[in-house]
Amino acid sequence: MRKQFAMVLAGGILGAGILATGYAAEGKPEDTVKYRQSLYNIIGWNFKPMGAMAKGEIPFDATAVARHAQYVEMMSKALPESFAQGTGPDAVKNTEAKPEIWTKTAEFDTKMKDFQREAAALNEVAKSGDEKAIKAQFGKTAETCKACHKAFRKD
Amino acid sequence: MRKQFAMVLAGGILGAGILATGYAAEGKPEDTVKYRQSLYNIIGWNFKPMGAMAKGEIPFDATAVARHAQYVEMMSKALPESFAQGTGPDAVKNTEAKPEIWTKTAEFDTKMKDFQREAAALNEVAKSGDEKAIKAQFGKTAETCKACHKAFRKD
Repeated sequence: MRKQFAMVLAGGILGAGILATGYAAEGKPEDTVKYRQSLYNIIGWNFKPMGAMAKGEIPFDATAVARHAQYVEMMSKALPESFAQGTGPDAVKNTEAKPEIWTKTAEFDTKMKDFQREAAALNEVAKSGDEKAIKAQFGKTAETCKACHKAFRKD
Repeated sequence: MRKQFAMVLAGGILGAGILATGYAAEGKPEDTVKYRQSLYNIIGWNFKPMGAMAKGEIPFDATAVARHAQYVEMMSKALPESFAQGTGPDAVKNTEAKPEIWTKTAEFDTKMKDFQREAAALNEVAKSGDEKAIKAQFGKTAETCKACHKAFRKD
């Protein structure tokens, strides 16, 4: 019984380990921030043409979307580690990350998971080539970006 | 016959389009360079722990290697676009890319493909969990990094 409790507890701790703020920064905080910015840069690079397609600024290209969506999902999975403890604005310059990321951890983690979930759904629907469904799911994914940036990114 | 020739020619041109220097830079060259550096940053982030494992500095972790190798392969596929025309040191500051990338294109493309091929092989063998095979393939992949950096990256 005690062992079982310990296992549940350990599971909880390990579970928390996948959350953004459960990571300890390895190496220099600056390197982690650079990594974080690289992930977001690649997300942005792939998001931009999908956004232009969603707005009808450029023709819809199912093959391109499938590739972009794959990168966005991959990057979304890598993000939490890049928000390791000690990589906020108190530790490094040139970060747009707000300190609330490491204080309102439950809210941040929810928003991070919202993005990861919608990005995964986008990658999935992108494989179908269904323009209408893809554009709808792109919109949902973009909303999760905005929601998190509004709360946790400096203007 | 003429049509067939035209198709072969078009195939050649399209084929060249996937080469590093076949891309035209869209948007600002600075953005492309930032994207390029982001890709390399993520490659480095994932390469580092694999290197430490290869040297025996940290314990071998098959699950981690599988994840790292997946990111390295994904980034390797994205690299060529980031070496678009007009994104060399004559156009942007703060790049370690040598101008030879855009003059010795055949050599650069060969080296890029060497890396892509070995990174793909690493991702494949990483799924096996076979430590010896993985470490051997990691070594091969690292060699392709070095070969390209030696020829085409500033010290």
